[in-house]
Amino acid sequence: MPIDNPFYSAQAQGDYALLSIGRFELEEGGVIEDLQLAVATYGELNEAKDNAILVPTWFSGTHATWWQVYIGEGHALDPSRWFIVVVNQIGGGLSTSPHTTDDPSIAMSRFPKVRIGDDVRAQEQLLREVFGIERLALVVGGSMGAQQTWEWAVRFPDKVLRAAPIAGTAQNTPHDTLFTRTLLDAITSDPGWNGGEYTSHTQVRDGLARHADIWAVMGLTTDFWKTEFWRGIPPLDPALSFSTYEEFQQNFIRFLFCSMDPDALLCMGWKWQRGDVARLADGDLAAALGRITARVVVLPIEQDMFFPPRDCEAEAALTPGATVTRLHSIAGHFGLFGFEASYVAEVDAALGALLDA
Amino acid sequence: MPIDNPFYSAQAQGDYALLSIGRFELEEGGVIEDLQLAVATYGELNEAKDNAILVPTWFSGTHATWWQVYIGEGHALDPSRWFIVVVNQIGGGLSTSPHTTDDPSIAMSRFPKVRIGDDVRAQEQLLREVFGIERLALVVGGSMGAQQTWEWAVRFPDKVLRAAPIAGTAQNTPHDTLFTRTLLDAITSDPGWNGGEYTSHTQVRDGLARHADIWAVMGLTTDFWKTEFWRGIPPLDPALSFSTYEEFQQNFIRFLFCSMDPDALLCMGWKWQRGDVARLADGDLAAALGRITARVVVLPIEQDMFFPPRDCEAEAALTPGATVTRLHSIAGHFGLFGFEASYVAEVDAALGALLDA
Repeated sequence: MPIDNPFYSAQAQGDYALLSIGRFELEEGGVIEDLQLAVATYGELNEAKDNAILVPTWFSGTHATWWQVYIGEGHALDPSRWFIVVVNQIGGGLSTSPHTTDDPSIAMSRFPKVRIGDDVRAQEQLLREVFGIERLALVVGGSMGAQQTWEWAVRFPDKVLRAAPIAGTAQNTPHDTLFTRTLLDAITSDPGWNGGEYTSHTQVRDGLARHADIWAVMGLTTDFWKTEFWRGIPPLDPALSFSTYEEFQQNFIRFLFCSMDPDALLCMGWKWQRGDVARLADGDLAAALGRITARVVVLPIEQDMFFPPRDCEAEAALTPGATVTRLHSIAGHFGLFGFEASYVAEVDAALGALLDA
Repeated sequence: MPIDNPFYSAQAQGDYALLSIGRFELEEGGVIEDLQLAVATYGELNEAKDNAILVPTWFSGTHATWWQVYIGEGHALDPSRWFIVVVNQIGGGLSTSPHTTDDPSIAMSRFPKVRIGDDVRAQEQLLREVFGIERLALVVGGSMGAQQTWEWAVRFPDKVLRAAPIAGTAQNTPHDTLFTRTLLDAITSDPGWNGGEYTSHTQVRDGLARHADIWAVMGLTTDFWKTEFWRGIPPLDPALSFSTYEEFQQNFIRFLFCSMDPDALLCMGWKWQRGDVARLADGDLAAALGRITARVVVLPIEQDMFFPPRDCEAEAALTPGATVTRLHSIAGHFGLFGFEASYVAEVDAALGALLDA
């Protein structure tokens, strides 16, 4: 029986539609009999169907941050000009996921392994079959969204005119894989997780809190904490204010991650660890990136602790014609949440220039 | 009954002496009736007693790395010229510690809270009472050893001629405190820890392994892993070789930390989180650092993920006459282990110039 978790609702995340693409075979051998993708669209597809922008989502995130921060009039992702499609990850909590499926063969601990390539193939099918979109003006995503962006550009070079991976890599680094393991083990070490067979995410609260605590260290930066930047961040709930950094950690970061579904996080984390476009070219990263024909701008964030600019820049150097623009956020990787107007302006400038090119 | 753990032995760590300084009252209110400090000395104290160098130790470490890497002919810390005293931390496993004491009032979970200031006061007493040393030519330490180095320079300005804090801060940052929490919670979340009342550290293996896994992420760097720098590191044991990064993580990093005592790590971690010289000046960091009369060279390591150069440099700016020399190691914070001859040469050059000044 599906678990009701209010975090995964239109009320919490913003409107979306569940669109089925039917039976879907996964790269690791599993099958989802009726894959439903949670899709949020902004703007109108034009008759030529050449104004579509795809946004894949990041670990633990949904379309919410995109419409709240990046999409709107005055932004590069302007719905009056573009048809913007945000597709939530398979297994991420809104699309078909361990805790929401009513198919017992894939529920909870039986959910199959999903790869970045599965998400990208599912998105391609969705865009083609449901919307009739054959080419994308832009694919843009952050973190695991960047992994999917790279995968799109390598896997479907003819379909991607432009690509903007933000704070993420085409090939996951060993450090990143080790980091993700600490996140996942924080959850699975909680006896309440019970091999994935809990009946409420609240039974895994200790594990989710440890998971959140690791995010507070790796997702943010020493400067974020030292300058008390969090004082300028609005509470997630008026009842959850904070006046010390410990309270911010408790009432914001822990609160956020403890609202999520453990098996969804584990599904995404497993996928993240294995993101690697080189799989499409017999393990040869340069060969894979060499296939890209999209105009690519690589957008790492300074101070990012696990997708540092140097790792992103090394991949840009292997990508024909790619350029790099470093983004700046005191929040490091979590700069993706758009805490700073200056950061959002940098993203808008980079995407605006790319879309005009 | 004390727990026998071969990691905490002269065979494993190198020769040392247990020197008692008697009853010792701790800042947090606890008492150690017979505080024994594990002390390793190198060289001879001269008649003027003005050639003494003190080295306090870092989290999880002992005097071992110091004699293996930093001390010897050809190094700045040359025993033919200097009398070098390495004092292992209270509660760190070799000095009086939770798992080794035969005093039931402080054994295991009853071990009192220890602060950086306690270590420094104990070291001062030891040097004065046992060796007759009233002034130190140099205090040098890395990480938590840097915390103690700063504390020495602020607390006993007349006794410290020179100070060289490597990869550590005078005031722990919030980020660092949050990071340390993830390390400690990895241990205490293991049911085998049993509130600190295990009978062998092997009962806490899962927690120690998770603890090690977090170190692999924060103690090292993306470059260390990506370049497979570990291929040049000798195994800790010939039976524990490695040819993949997963094997290095398993056979080196996990093996190392899983050899240690959980309660000792927790004692040190609690202490680390609260390192703060501002406590000596009513919370005013600038006032505390302003008391320093020692010649100070601050030695942060580039790529250090939790004591980054900017945090160390901010403190140097508050310290009269202090200079900064950035050290370089692909291993980040774990550069302290001296994997690279170039790094050791940088330390020797900085300490040599300081000692000659």
